[in-house]
Amino acid sequence: MAAVIIDGKAFAAKVRAQVGAAVTALKAQGITPGLAVVLVGEDPASQVYVRNKHRQTIEVGMNSFEHRLPAETPEADLLALIAQLNADTAVDGILVQLPLPAHLNAELVINAIDPTKDVDGFHIDNVGKLVTGQKSMVPCTPLGSLMLLRDSLGDLNGLEAVVIGRSNIVGKPMANLLLQQGCTVTIAHSRTRDLPAVVRRADIVVAAVGRPEMVKGEWLKPGATVIDVGINRIQPAGADKAKLVGDCDFDSCAAVAGAITPVPGGVGPMTIACLLANTLTATCRRYGLPEPVGLTA
Amino acid sequence: MAAVIIDGKAFAAKVRAQVGAAVTALKAQGITPGLAVVLVGEDPASQVYVRNKHRQTIEVGMNSFEHRLPAETPEADLLALIAQLNADTAVDGILVQLPLPAHLNAELVINAIDPTKDVDGFHIDNVGKLVTGQKSMVPCTPLGSLMLLRDSLGDLNGLEAVVIGRSNIVGKPMANLLLQQGCTVTIAHSRTRDLPAVVRRADIVVAAVGRPEMVKGEWLKPGATVIDVGINRIQPAGADKAKLVGDCDFDSCAAVAGAITPVPGGVGPMTIACLLANTLTATCRRYGLPEPVGLTA
Repeated sequence: MAAVIIDGKAFAAKVRAQVGAAVTALKAQGITPGLAVVLVGEDPASQVYVRNKHRQTIEVGMNSFEHRLPAETPEADLLALIAQLNADTAVDGILVQLPLPAHLNAELVINAIDPTKDVDGFHIDNVGKLVTGQKSMVPCTPLGSLMLLRDSLGDLNGLEAVVIGRSNIVGKPMANLLLQQGCTVTIAHSRTRDLPAVVRRADIVVAAVGRPEMVKGEWLKPGATVIDVGINRIQPAGADKAKLVGDCDFDSCAAVAGAITPVPGGVGPMTIACLLANTLTATCRRYGLPEPVGLTA
Repeated sequence: MAAVIIDGKAFAAKVRAQVGAAVTALKAQGITPGLAVVLVGEDPASQVYVRNKHRQTIEVGMNSFEHRLPAETPEADLLALIAQLNADTAVDGILVQLPLPAHLNAELVINAIDPTKDVDGFHIDNVGKLVTGQKSMVPCTPLGSLMLLRDSLGDLNGLEAVVIGRSNIVGKPMANLLLQQGCTVTIAHSRTRDLPAVVRRADIVVAAVGRPEMVKGEWLKPGATVIDVGINRIQPAGADKAKLVGDCDFDSCAAVAGAITPVPGGVGPMTIACLLANTLTATCRRYGLPEPVGLTA
């Protein structure tokens, strides 16, 4: 069996096109959605992300507000900026790029964002609403993964899903989304005793652990759908350049799976596309307009 | 194999005794914890619960404030009462008895409670904090179930747990607590395709579905620990009186399980004991005092 390769790059482009069309319609009503991104410090990976977010925000026709603060910014200054963005009527979405420098309390900072502008979906209000089935902002990577799964599989009701990894950013919200879709959901993690046996039960595997090529093809149930959230930079022996790999051993997994996301070009591009989708959703809610179809959980 | 019968009634008495001792110590410092219970309408089961809560609150030395409102109470009046209780310095814990009459929006009402006084742990703030591992108020029935599991099994790390039922009140918070303890957690529910096969994986089974005697002994892994959250009233054929049964078929389960909670006398008594424990915890946090040991998640 050769797995279908799920083209996240193409799907993300479709999502961005849909967001762009909706932004055009909003602008005709005098509304331009605005996304504010706050970056503290000089983390190189974060700088790349923020640059990409900025570019794609502009491309879909939204306003992009970038706030770059020095690594040593005091917490009070960051909180004051967030309060200002909360109050700013031109700002529909606020994202504070993580990780923050160690002297800043990330929980405190995230929970200072107005939950209706929290387009990352990390505020405890949004977490609580997602878990209890209330309308919320849904974290971008799990939302993008869900879109790919629904596109590949249609109705997810009754499927066995295994989420590997229990992070607040991916694993736990992903498990909640799959539960809402009617999956029987297992969350596995570093303490799981026989991970291959747990993974072998799954119709859907979502790998979000950050360990390069950990999940092997022989762990999979034949025909399973594999969503690989990992993005790991490795240096293959004998190779000149580092390369990006996922949490799944792609070749062996693709030989057994029914469908699989590649790395790069799978879940990765969906994350920023969903950030833009969330900003659009926040804007529509704020103005009491209908929410975009297919871009929410 | 004959299962150990987990004596929730005795364990709950121990919890109440510990709470009572802590209350005595607080009173010596001039602090008397107070629990306010709000009952809207005449639901007979709710009246029994509220009466039991009142009696046990008094028994551990706390102040008990009962507010009984007519079934047709307007939402604004209920919200005004909650605002008053939020502001009342004599009140450390607030519980609104569920279910509410249909004209009242339960989500809105629960989210109006000051989260630090939300001793039921249902406010989205507390849900979000529980999920993300921040300090929260934990719902009483899952907290009581966790206490029984820790008492029976000690360290839960690496155990396979299956929670049957995905309610906001029991199933989902229970799954999060077990995940925090290092279990590999599966949430099963009405859409699960082969429930017996899923249950058979589990070292720990928590049944919270509200279907009398649904879980059969032959579904269990020999030696599993079974926590039966169900309380169902059935009328056995030929019997004069109704009887209470759990979600597990007790006799067949007890023949296979390593340990099992009975119904009644298992999880049931733990719920009010944990409500008192939560009220004590809320009081200690409010005054910046050390939290009671062993009474939190």
